Amino acid sequence: MLLLRRCHSLTRFGPLNTQRHQVAPGVASCAARLWSSSEDQRSHQRTHGPSWRHALAGLLAGTGAVLAYGLHHHKAEQANTIRVQTIENTSALPTFTQEEVTRHRSLQDGVWVTYKGGVYDITEFVAMHPGGDKILLAAGGDLEPFWALYAVHKQEHVLEILSEYKVGELSAEDLKKQQAVQTSDPYSSDPKRHPVLRINSLKPFNAEPPPEILSDSFITPSAIFFKRNHLPVPQVDPASYELHVAGLHGGVLSLSLEELKTRFPKHTVTATLQCAGNRRSEMNKVKQVKGLNWGIAAISNATWSGARLRDVLLAAGYRPDVAQWASHVHFEGLDKDATGTAYAASIPLNKAVSEEGDVLLAYEMNGEDLPADHGYPVRVVVPGIVGARNVKWLGKIIVSAEESTSHWQQNDYKGFSPGTDWDNVDFKSAPAIQELPIQSAITTPADGTVVDRSVNELTVKGYAWSGGGREVVRVDVSLDGGKTWQVAQLRSSETGQAPEPSPPLGRAWAWKLWEITAPLPPEAQELEIVCKAVDNSYNMQPDTIPPIWNLRGVLSNAWHRVKVKINEDESKK
Amino acid sequence: MLLLRRCHSLTRFGPLNTQRHQVAPGVASCAARLWSSSEDQRSHQRTHGPSWRHALAGLLAGTGAVLAYGLHHHKAEQANTIRVQTIENTSALPTFTQEEVTRHRSLQDGVWVTYKGGVYDITEFVAMHPGGDKILLAAGGDLEPFWALYAVHKQEHVLEILSEYKVGELSAEDLKKQQAVQTSDPYSSDPKRHPVLRINSLKPFNAEPPPEILSDSFITPSAIFFKRNHLPVPQVDPASYELHVAGLHGGVLSLSLEELKTRFPKHTVTATLQCAGNRRSEMNKVKQVKGLNWGIAAISNATWSGARLRDVLLAAGYRPDVAQWASHVHFEGLDKDATGTAYAASIPLNKAVSEEGDVLLAYEMNGEDLPADHGYPVRVVVPGIVGARNVKWLGKIIVSAEESTSHWQQNDYKGFSPGTDWDNVDFKSAPAIQELPIQSAITTPADGTVVDRSVNELTVKGYAWSGGGREVVRVDVSLDGGKTWQVAQLRSSETGQAPEPSPPLGRAWAWKLWEITAPLPPEAQELEIVCKAVDNSYNMQPDTIPPIWNLRGVLSNAWHRVKVKINEDESKK
Repeated sequence: MLLLRRCHSLTRFGPLNTQRHQVAPGVASCAARLWSSSEDQRSHQRTHGPSWRHALAGLLAGTGAVLAYGLHHHKAEQANTIRVQTIENTSALPTFTQEEVTRHRSLQDGVWVTYKGGVYDITEFVAMHPGGDKILLAAGGDLEPFWALYAVHKQEHVLEILSEYKVGELSAEDLKKQQAVQTSDPYSSDPKRHPVLRINSLKPFNAEPPPEILSDSFITPSAIFFKRNHLPVPQVDPASYELHVAGLHGGVLSLSLEELKTRFPKHTVTATLQCAGNRRSEMNKVKQVKGLNWGIAAISNATWSGARLRDVLLAAGYRPDVAQWASHVHFEGLDKDATGTAYAASIPLNKAVSEEGDVLLAYEMNGEDLPADHGYPVRVVVPGIVGARNVKWLGKIIVSAEESTSHWQQNDYKGFSPGTDWDNVDFKSAPAIQELPIQSAITTPADGTVVDRSVNELTVKGYAWSGGGREVVRVDVSLDGGKTWQVAQLRSSETGQAPEPSPPLGRAWAWKLWEITAPLPPEAQELEIVCKAVDNSYNMQPDTIPPIWNLRGVLSNAWHRVKVKINEDESKK
Repeated sequence: MLLLRRCHSLTRFGPLNTQRHQVAPGVASCAARLWSSSEDQRSHQRTHGPSWRHALAGLLAGTGAVLAYGLHHHKAEQANTIRVQTIENTSALPTFTQEEVTRHRSLQDGVWVTYKGGVYDITEFVAMHPGGDKILLAAGGDLEPFWALYAVHKQEHVLEILSEYKVGELSAEDLKKQQAVQTSDPYSSDPKRHPVLRINSLKPFNAEPPPEILSDSFITPSAIFFKRNHLPVPQVDPASYELHVAGLHGGVLSLSLEELKTRFPKHTVTATLQCAGNRRSEMNKVKQVKGLNWGIAAISNATWSGARLRDVLLAAGYRPDVAQWASHVHFEGLDKDATGTAYAASIPLNKAVSEEGDVLLAYEMNGEDLPADHGYPVRVVVPGIVGARNVKWLGKIIVSAEESTSHWQQNDYKGFSPGTDWDNVDFKSAPAIQELPIQSAITTPADGTVVDRSVNELTVKGYAWSGGGREVVRVDVSLDGGKTWQVAQLRSSETGQAPEPSPPLGRAWAWKLWEITAPLPPEAQELEIVCKAVDNSYNMQPDTIPPIWNLRGVLSNAWHRVKVKINEDESKK
């Protein structure tokens, strides 16, 4: 509920710095702007002393206040008094190119955004944004995809607020471009993606959401769910789509999308997927590895619905005696490289056919058709298993005595000793990654955050997950680099919702989000915040990266560490 | 003395391997004992030079103190300064009847006990009791039967501690009554044990083999298989033995030993058992924990044969729909404490009934009847699960909606954060340990060994195992404290035998032995040898002990480290 009250009290009350919270770097400058804009305000602020401080509390903490637009509507007029932009006469406003807009993507250069052809300078609004400085993620670009992500924005008065900041129109040409991207490369038909994603590779498309957004939702919205494509996204016509199931004595079973949906019961599973390369960037800091430089967000959680692989295999002729000669189930995607080779991988047969394995041939993600980037129309979801085996755009299933011979199964996605490098690696010596080990990371605060001493306490948030259906049972958090530890609170549902019942043993497919609020240690000038998780087999994360470094930079699951500086009070200096 | 007998028996075997240069730290003191006890032996040792050192290697490392009374002794002294009870003038103390004593059986009413006619108010000692609040079981009654059960109490300083709490004398009449009750030693019928075992507690019997003997055999000989008894070994007559299976709609199924052997197919499984407290001594070095001071050998590997629990449950009426209301299978032992409470534990139902769970009601160990210490005539073997659930002297199996309510399931064998201690622990907050995490240790050389520079290379051996049927896929060994790593050779059969075929996925119940021979680093004067293992879910061991320290000292699975000194050649000096 803070937007305008915060905005109002902030602008009325002034000097921001003395006593507040996890202050993002932007706040000081924002405060300066607001402050310098009105002498009257400053004196008013002085009168009211500490109250603004409280009002600002949490503003920059970021997450909780997103839903606050409504209650602040009535304050909009007051905001108007500080900001004298009007929108009545839009024709009088200048026209800007996208390039000009793009130059304004920081508090220093100004924060501009576009929305349905309008250009808005929201620099001064940043500090008032109920969602905190996440608004900066849209800087220099279009607001629409962000508002699509956070439906709270779809209210009339939010548009009213925005209108106050209008500074011009986007050129007709750039508006057209915004609406349609066209090229002729193999990636030309790749879908549009959400601009908030941090792109590690454009072609093939590989991107992750900003960490602080990731931990906002227990179920990751599909638009920001990390994308890990190995090849161009294939265009699949659902009407002519066929899934082939081979390798069983009954011959090849072919299923249309309709048959897959109607012949088999629909199952729904909430499962976290993680790329084997999640947190690879930390390994790169030890010694360069080969692979996409993922941050900590190549992991996301969604609800998947589809037919059970087990049911489809049974329909194709699977019987328990098949296990006497077969040990693997292969998946081939419809995504192909220039030589026509499809992406492929395999999983162990017992995972595929187990009633408790919950392997799905999913055609829905978060209640809707699979998005193109996530395997439309059908993908495999293998809960508890590394992302690479969750083959998208699924074309073929093959029951086999042998593992998939694909590059991705045999010569990639394997772990090695730190003593093994490209000159002595034998890919045959290591098993293909299937279940992933225990993992956790801190999504907020970000590394390098500066916290004011006066805030007294600090909230740390993150995620934790383990492979193989092993449930996360505890997350320990340290503010002193691992010397002392506190236990974080775990969450396995959306904020404010009742917790989900504990999953059956061995079927904990979804992550847990966690949070802890702890007093700032009295003497510290810098905190090294560390998290480590424990699963119900009491597996624990290794302490440090170098001993688990490996040439492919996979399985990077050491304790996650972020450093935070404490800014002592001016008054005490 | 036992120690000496061990030394003696080993020295008799003489020159085992003259090339060895690995000497345990305890050797010097052992040698001193031997010298002082026998001139003959001394000359024998001299004749054979380094050989006896090898034979003794590790033998004396860590002849662990039993429980923690030693540590608490000084606490008691401190308590003494507050509590100025004296016992010199016992005649001045009042006389109480048993009835009066019996009124004091809680912290509220005071905790009184009697011992050999004395009456003691131990209320203030309860919190200091190394055995935890089990001491309350004796409240209002006589200590002697409890001390008979836990022989650690039979030390002079324990009596000293007790004397500080004396408040009176038991009436002569009541003392007579007490003495009339049979106080025979409940451990008197415990079996004879192999003298090589390192005893952590005599009553109940808890002991482990010397590490370098442990890794000699892929299948641990039953005689040196670690022993972990919670109570006296019960005497079970095989002719009248009955196993009761309850909790299913078919009523109670009772099976004689003969029926168990003949009505159900005999299955054989090679499985490693590990005590949750294995390697606890390393945690004790960080900060004292409660529990037996195990070294690295509270783990062993055997071949078990018996009926499958699944088959017996099916015979007792188990059907898949049972899973709709039941989630656990309890096991009750025939071993009982002074109050008649049997040792008990439970495992998840899905492990118990899974065709791939391989849970046995074993009546054979390594091809022979179970030894008395290992549960004769029938024990549960739950592969991949902590030793504590592998209930010995099995009397009863109960299918249930709830976990076992036993002390050992609810208030023991759980892991906690290093920030949790006895003043803030909530046992309900942690799951009972079932599957154990990845583990490995170096069995040779022993810590403190001195190696001659002239040997040029060093052989390091050890074991590695992971819970839940996860196969060990790699062991990394470092000679420089973890800076650089080499990959050890794994072995899953006896030396010289063909390797066993790889177990089915998720059913790798047996450990792997490993070995590596590496050149001595040219400049080093001391080596810090480290091992860490990886399982096929790519779980890795944590680097260090302090961050996994927990008040019960369980799950101690950080990298194992031993230090070795390099003795430069005389000729080069």
